[in-house]
Amino acid sequence: MKTKTKKYVLTDDQMPTQWYNMVADMPHKPLPPLHPGTKKPVTKEELCSIFAEELMDQELSQERFIDIPEEVQNLYKIWRSTPLVRAYELEKALGTPAKIYFKNESTSPAGSHKPNTAIPQAYYNYKQGIKNMTTETGGGQWGSALSFACKFFGINLKVFMVKVSYNQKPYRKLMMNTWGAEVIPSPSSLTDAGRTVLAHDPDCSGSLGIAISEAVEMAVKNPGTTKYCLGSVLNHVLLHQTIIGEEALRQMEMAGDMPDVVIGCFGGGSNFAGIGFPFIRQNLCEGKNIRVIAVEPQSCPKLTRGTFQYDFGDTVGLTPLIPMYTLGHNFQPSDIHAGGLRYHGAGAIVSQLLKDGLIEARSIPQLETFQAGLLFAKTEGIIPAPESTHAIAMAIREAQQAKEEGKSKTILFNLSGHGLVDLYAYEQYFAGNLKNYEVSDETIGKSVKELERIL
Amino acid sequence: MKTKTKKYVLTDDQMPTQWYNMVADMPHKPLPPLHPGTKKPVTKEELCSIFAEELMDQELSQERFIDIPEEVQNLYKIWRSTPLVRAYELEKALGTPAKIYFKNESTSPAGSHKPNTAIPQAYYNYKQGIKNMTTETGGGQWGSALSFACKFFGINLKVFMVKVSYNQKPYRKLMMNTWGAEVIPSPSSLTDAGRTVLAHDPDCSGSLGIAISEAVEMAVKNPGTTKYCLGSVLNHVLLHQTIIGEEALRQMEMAGDMPDVVIGCFGGGSNFAGIGFPFIRQNLCEGKNIRVIAVEPQSCPKLTRGTFQYDFGDTVGLTPLIPMYTLGHNFQPSDIHAGGLRYHGAGAIVSQLLKDGLIEARSIPQLETFQAGLLFAKTEGIIPAPESTHAIAMAIREAQQAKEEGKSKTILFNLSGHGLVDLYAYEQYFAGNLKNYEVSDETIGKSVKELERIL
Repeated sequence: MKTKTKKYVLTDDQMPTQWYNMVADMPHKPLPPLHPGTKKPVTKEELCSIFAEELMDQELSQERFIDIPEEVQNLYKIWRSTPLVRAYELEKALGTPAKIYFKNESTSPAGSHKPNTAIPQAYYNYKQGIKNMTTETGGGQWGSALSFACKFFGINLKVFMVKVSYNQKPYRKLMMNTWGAEVIPSPSSLTDAGRTVLAHDPDCSGSLGIAISEAVEMAVKNPGTTKYCLGSVLNHVLLHQTIIGEEALRQMEMAGDMPDVVIGCFGGGSNFAGIGFPFIRQNLCEGKNIRVIAVEPQSCPKLTRGTFQYDFGDTVGLTPLIPMYTLGHNFQPSDIHAGGLRYHGAGAIVSQLLKDGLIEARSIPQLETFQAGLLFAKTEGIIPAPESTHAIAMAIREAQQAKEEGKSKTILFNLSGHGLVDLYAYEQYFAGNLKNYEVSDETIGKSVKELERIL
Repeated sequence: MKTKTKKYVLTDDQMPTQWYNMVADMPHKPLPPLHPGTKKPVTKEELCSIFAEELMDQELSQERFIDIPEEVQNLYKIWRSTPLVRAYELEKALGTPAKIYFKNESTSPAGSHKPNTAIPQAYYNYKQGIKNMTTETGGGQWGSALSFACKFFGINLKVFMVKVSYNQKPYRKLMMNTWGAEVIPSPSSLTDAGRTVLAHDPDCSGSLGIAISEAVEMAVKNPGTTKYCLGSVLNHVLLHQTIIGEEALRQMEMAGDMPDVVIGCFGGGSNFAGIGFPFIRQNLCEGKNIRVIAVEPQSCPKLTRGTFQYDFGDTVGLTPLIPMYTLGHNFQPSDIHAGGLRYHGAGAIVSQLLKDGLIEARSIPQLETFQAGLLFAKTEGIIPAPESTHAIAMAIREAQQAKEEGKSKTILFNLSGHGLVDLYAYEQYFAGNLKNYEVSDETIGKSVKELERIL
């Protein structure tokens, strides 16, 4: 009896030992980040006031490949490689001639792709002797991943968690507590940034931008003892996530296949870059013609409807100015359940790639994403995170188009995480309490207009 | 740079294609199950009134190996093989000369080992044309696994969930709902069995035994349209779980190692048998000398303090009488958080193996298990299910003994599931609300004495 191969895994000794730095191969390099005060390109020294030094070397690096430290490789092996899975059952349900593969990042102990960068970030801070770290979390996936990572290195972690997620996801908070982190709902009264927001709107449900402001402020005010770190957007974060795509490349080769389309959901860019960058390299350096698609929620459409401009990474204006597609740092996204996608801007590399037409972007309404997530749970058995359902919905659109056109194609998407700790979202969906959120041109225009004052 | 191999995985084409039937190699075969009414050995026809026919062929089979159907193999590949992981970080924290390996069953979409039998059970029922199934669940792991499995085959599932778990674990219920199952807190007023219990004790927090009674009754009262199925105890369930140990055997060979001790936590026996039986075969057929240890909670000590006797699998007396180590079917275990281990008896095969000295049994108090679970989360990064912490605690005891004796040994335990959907238990532990539950000899004696009336 011969059964079909469904899943491709790499053994520990087949694992990639280097991350891929997209910057090396970009035809137009991203514009430099600017100091929020001087508006001059920010120096490594300035960045190192809040970030660990080796991470900033990576942030500014032009090297094509960067070695993964042995300690990080060993911790990656707790769960990596993640499986590349052929979604036969989903294909069958859709009646599509397309082949659909997904990279299953949900098998990490934190349930998402976020530990891929959490571990090296904790490691480089530890190596520098840092004992305290701060960060923010939206959907809770980054906060749990960093809690998991800090535990290995004995680092104390404070996580500012967007209040709407804090209330919706008590189990996310408990995960972080179990790994030893302290979790603070944001906006909080612990920081100037939080107090300012609360003074204007005591019932503010928070946003990633506000939470970043709080976490950065706490690091800035405790120089030398406390460093900040970020789970998305920045170059070094995206660098670490390329382990996903580097594995996927090798696994697609094992499958004797190569994607025509690569899809990732898009919040700040980390899982999208992780799956996508190594395939963009195939286009730029190997003459391939792979479409790479970033999928954002309809309610937070920076890539599809934002403007390309320098903007802050946070709400208050403490971070460097980053050249990005943005809705404006004061844009307040709706309380959709894909908390990790409620971010106003995109990172510098991804923004430049979009500007240069090297990637595509699409937005999808919330209800379509939950429908896609449930079809996936029914066919492939895995309950996806609300964020990941955006990638699934796009993969389904592509598969349906293939069916309409009667053409085969190979689709690869990243399943960035499972939804077992986000089941409240599904409960709300079943209860009919979820809806789509259309953003008006006026709202975006107003929010973007405020950016004119920055530069 | 050469890093250590931490993890051993099998590719899809290296996967075992047969389950192992322990009965074939047992020096003393288990005594036959008896009909609850006639007290005569139960016939296949009688069993088939509530169970699917091919499952009952397996229940009574004496064949050493049984082929895994192609459809089941294909669904196994969604997540199997599960990784065999060397717990270097736990070893380091313990300062032990022992080598510790664990089989990581938490990577399944339902988060535990239970889908290993849920999928074939749903498959054989589907093959027989069954459209409705009933079952019970303790900790929620079996109920979620069967919901996951039934979804693939379009089977409607009703799950009777032990009330204490239903209240403690809302996310477990939501998982089942998301995969399309109906979840009923047990004891319920839907069945005679439930109503009888509620009449005596309206606040009864339930038990696996009561929930089994309810699920069986619903199948018995709807003959032809509804079948019952069980997540542990019975021979065919244990058979399906041997995929764990069959993989582990091959993976230990890949690691160039062989365990001296194999450990599984013990509720009804399914994950213990899964990891253990193939290694017992090594003892019986290959002249190996591997200790195989079942670990139960101090509060539900059927293996270490129960009596070997015919007893019902449920509380009301609807199931066949099974020859088992039991605390008596009316034994009401404390509300410990390892809900899956709150069961009064052990399966026939495991009980006979224990009687014949072919396995060992130990019991561990609740607080020690949570301490072990947290050490594991800190060192190996995975938050274990409260059930699995019992196996971890035993592995730690063995590793500490190795340290005291200055001897190396190789320990293998089964990590039966993750605790991400059971985080309430950890919250209670952190809050200091958990305690140990010592069971008095008098309580056990009284409960066991009631068995005299059965035969």
